[in-house]
Amino acid sequence: MSLDRRGFLAAGGGALVCTLAGQKVREDREADLERLALDVPEPDAVRTGARAAQATVSGPRREYWLVAEPVRWTIVPNKRDEMMDAAVKGRTTFGAYAYVAYSKDFGRPLGKATIPGPTLEAEVGETLVVHFRNRTKVPLTVHPHGVFYTPDMDGAYKGRFSDPGGFVKPGATFTYVWECREGTEGVWPYHDHGPMDPLPVYKGLFGFLNVRKPGAPRPDVEHYIAFHAFLPVATGLKTAYQCINGRSFTGNTPTLTAKVGQRVAQHITVMSDDFHTYHLHGHRWRGPDGRVVDNVTLGPADAYSLEFVEDNPGRWFYHCHVFSHLHEGMSGWYVVDP
Amino acid sequence: MSLDRRGFLAAGGGALVCTLAGQKVREDREADLERLALDVPEPDAVRTGARAAQATVSGPRREYWLVAEPVRWTIVPNKRDEMMDAAVKGRTTFGAYAYVAYSKDFGRPLGKATIPGPTLEAEVGETLVVHFRNRTKVPLTVHPHGVFYTPDMDGAYKGRFSDPGGFVKPGATFTYVWECREGTEGVWPYHDHGPMDPLPVYKGLFGFLNVRKPGAPRPDVEHYIAFHAFLPVATGLKTAYQCINGRSFTGNTPTLTAKVGQRVAQHITVMSDDFHTYHLHGHRWRGPDGRVVDNVTLGPADAYSLEFVEDNPGRWFYHCHVFSHLHEGMSGWYVVDP
Amino acid sequence: MSLDRRGFLAAGGGALVCTLAGQKVREDREADLERLALDVPEPDAVRTGARAAQATVSGPRREYWLVAEPVRWTIVPNKRDEMMDAAVKGRTTFGAYAYVAYSKDFGRPLGKATIPGPTLEAEVGETLVVHFRNRTKVPLTVHPHGVFYTPDMDGAYKGRFSDPGGFVKPGATFTYVWECREGTEGVWPYHDHGPMDPLPVYKGLFGFLNVRKPGAPRPDVEHYIAFHAFLPVATGLKTAYQCINGRSFTGNTPTLTAKVGQRVAQHITVMSDDFHTYHLHGHRWRGPDGRVVDNVTLGPADAYSLEFVEDNPGRWFYHCHVFSHLHEGMSGWYVVDP
Repeated sequence: MSLDRRGFLAAGGGALVCTLAGQKVREDREADLERLALDVPEPDAVRTGARAAQATVSGPRREYWLVAEPVRWTIVPNKRDEMMDAAVKGRTTFGAYAYVAYSKDFGRPLGKATIPGPTLEAEVGETLVVHFRNRTKVPLTVHPHGVFYTPDMDGAYKGRFSDPGGFVKPGATFTYVWECREGTEGVWPYHDHGPMDPLPVYKGLFGFLNVRKPGAPRPDVEHYIAFHAFLPVATGLKTAYQCINGRSFTGNTPTLTAKVGQRVAQHITVMSDDFHTYHLHGHRWRGPDGRVVDNVTLGPADAYSLEFVEDNPGRWFYHCHVFSHLHEGMSGWYVVDP
Repeated sequence: MSLDRRGFLAAGGGALVCTLAGQKVREDREADLERLALDVPEPDAVRTGARAAQATVSGPRREYWLVAEPVRWTIVPNKRDEMMDAAVKGRTTFGAYAYVAYSKDFGRPLGKATIPGPTLEAEVGETLVVHFRNRTKVPLTVHPHGVFYTPDMDGAYKGRFSDPGGFVKPGATFTYVWECREGTEGVWPYHDHGPMDPLPVYKGLFGFLNVRKPGAPRPDVEHYIAFHAFLPVATGLKTAYQCINGRSFTGNTPTLTAKVGQRVAQHITVMSDDFHTYHLHGHRWRGPDGRVVDNVTLGPADAYSLEFVEDNPGRWFYHCHVFSHLHEGMSGWYVVDP
Repeated sequence: MSLDRRGFLAAGGGALVCTLAGQKVREDREADLERLALDVPEPDAVRTGARAAQATVSGPRREYWLVAEPVRWTIVPNKRDEMMDAAVKGRTTFGAYAYVAYSKDFGRPLGKATIPGPTLEAEVGETLVVHFRNRTKVPLTVHPHGVFYTPDMDGAYKGRFSDPGGFVKPGATFTYVWECREGTEGVWPYHDHGPMDPLPVYKGLFGFLNVRKPGAPRPDVEHYIAFHAFLPVATGLKTAYQCINGRSFTGNTPTLTAKVGQRVAQHITVMSDDFHTYHLHGHRWRGPDGRVVDNVTLGPADAYSLEFVEDNPGRWFYHCHVFSHLHEGMSGWYVVDP
């Protein structure tokens, strides 16, 4: 069920998001993360300054410097919904968090902050070494899907059982080592899974991992599509937005492109509390079970990849087919040149 | 979450369905579609009377004359739920929309209006030519899934980028040309995707497309099952109904039939905002991934087909296994003769 | 959307669960099952004492004596959430129902009541003979998924069409005969599907069936995981709990275990109104469609089995990746010894 401010208010404070430091956090009201963070107990392994176990780096390493930082973010920069040819009213800028890729040793940012964060690429047989620095004021982590990692490289807060990588304090740095073993190929999400979960995810802390098979032919074009929501609890805005890659409404969400004849891959994940269906107009593809489909169901943290050879020039929609999500912004253009 | 009137009212007007012409449309209150339609801006291509690009008709053509028209519709004609052996109280008749098949050149209706509308059949290699006439008072379209179509045959409203087929005005006629190319075989939904979306879908404007492989053996029996909802926003009734093919509650929804020994195919789609699971009692089937299943998850606009040889005579339920949906009417009989 | 007491109250009584004996039953308020049961009409076949049709027992029989009985149940026995290292406040004990396995002829219980109930095991070619006794004060049934059964062995209430097995009165006994024919292999849920549906399921009346292929190698470890909810309507408690096997919150839900080198199978089902995703940290597996996954979507009554060879010692989470469900208790430990 989709709610806007009126619905949220009437629902008596909105649905429960989580309970942090004994305080119930609800969808409709902005959570004060920095204040809540003060009451979250530090795990022993962090308080005592325990070191992470020595991680194995097998095979060649792919190294990334990743910073979680606060960023001013605008959900509907064009203030228009091109699908409905209508204005989108109201302020849509808020204090988000983003993972930002930096040059070696955190020298300089490699580009502007994006939501989702940078796509981490590796090949089967390589080891991902991700140096993570937390420049927000709340404890954070990076939790990967799909790849192989030992428990201390899990990036998950585990209460008293937490490893140092499960509670990276403001200002701290932690190096995650993840092995792209045989059988980890695919495109996966990564995301915060720390003690403030899911609020940092709801503020934008997620991205994609792409583990390729060596020698496998690369698609000509790859689209990374994250379905998620920006809710009042994370934005302080009055309205809930259904988003694709940090933006809402056609013309603001990514306008994907390709050319006829290109091999196009699309990688979709979900980073919200909702279930979605992914639909692409004018196209269809053979799913992993052999069926021809043009619409698939995806739940939180699912990852789905599809591929086709482009044969249909023009301006198309890609969107969530949950009707209310579509109308709350979960739609975009896919423009194919002849 | 399922709400009835009490829930809707308490939730402050219900969840947001969409924003049309700057007006928020909510689940619990009947939308005045004809009034809203007056404020929806005509796209340039429609106002200037642009012609659709010349569509390619390759291979033999399968021609349909399809009219969208208002229809009085009763959701629970028997006023009883045979599953619970209980009366279903209250008025369930309202002003729906339906796609109706007509004879050549819109001569005469080929039968009574149904929800879903007529199943459009074709074989791979054929081209579907669907002459669509809009006899309602709001702009409408027909958007197909699965088949191949050029952008102007998409049947999707695209704001200022709309082609004539994406905004068929009251009284107007538009001919859609859809190619059943290799790799489009399957059973697919079609539905309105015009400027009033999703309200016309919520009023009944959807149907099935069946693209068969030439020479493939036909099942002896085929059941088409659309899971959807009739909500107060579309009906003006007090209660939300979970429906199968326009009806709610066992004995009102289609009573499907077959005989022992027959090859039975069932084709299921979803045309509501909800996710559902399809369960059939006394039967199971091998899914496309090789697993034996008797219950599958489906989201909005997903399409799923299953097949089995009937071996179990008697009276069975088919239903959505979301418990609240089942109890709001999403269930029916499947009666197998020996 | 997840609601706690505050949300439920504000939502005007909560979502509709079902309508029993003409009375609307809502999520937020405890239903008086025993009182409601008095108004549920007995089907003719039960009132007249009709006998079930003679069931075929083909192949060897696997016999179970199963009793549905009231049981005091505590959802959060440790009163702590080990994931968040936080206290879980409030009373969590209530009057549940459970299926309990008894020795031959209902001699004595084979152990303490569990939720889910006992796993019923059989091999393809065998017939399951389940003697069911109802020791609660409301009519109940046992409805199996996956296996073959004639309509009178369906265990589903069908209003006036009900067979004796679809309405087992308080104090009564009914013997279900289910055939594990070729093509029924797999792990399936069973659950109440009687005239009080879904309230007895919501109180704990469900379990697993495991139909094995003869000669197939057994996994070294098997985990059975039921995602469900304990809602105020069924518990009389103030809060809704997202549960795994009758418990909520890490440390209370089952702590699953395995050793490196073991072949581990996990069997997951859903017995609530919600959709979920199953995620296991530090592991991934090849799904039936050939994809490598670590997160899958499951809806009500879906059944999903996965298998892997354990290679990653340590303390891991398994959990539902719907963020609000995770934070309402749908998470547990998986501890792997070296």
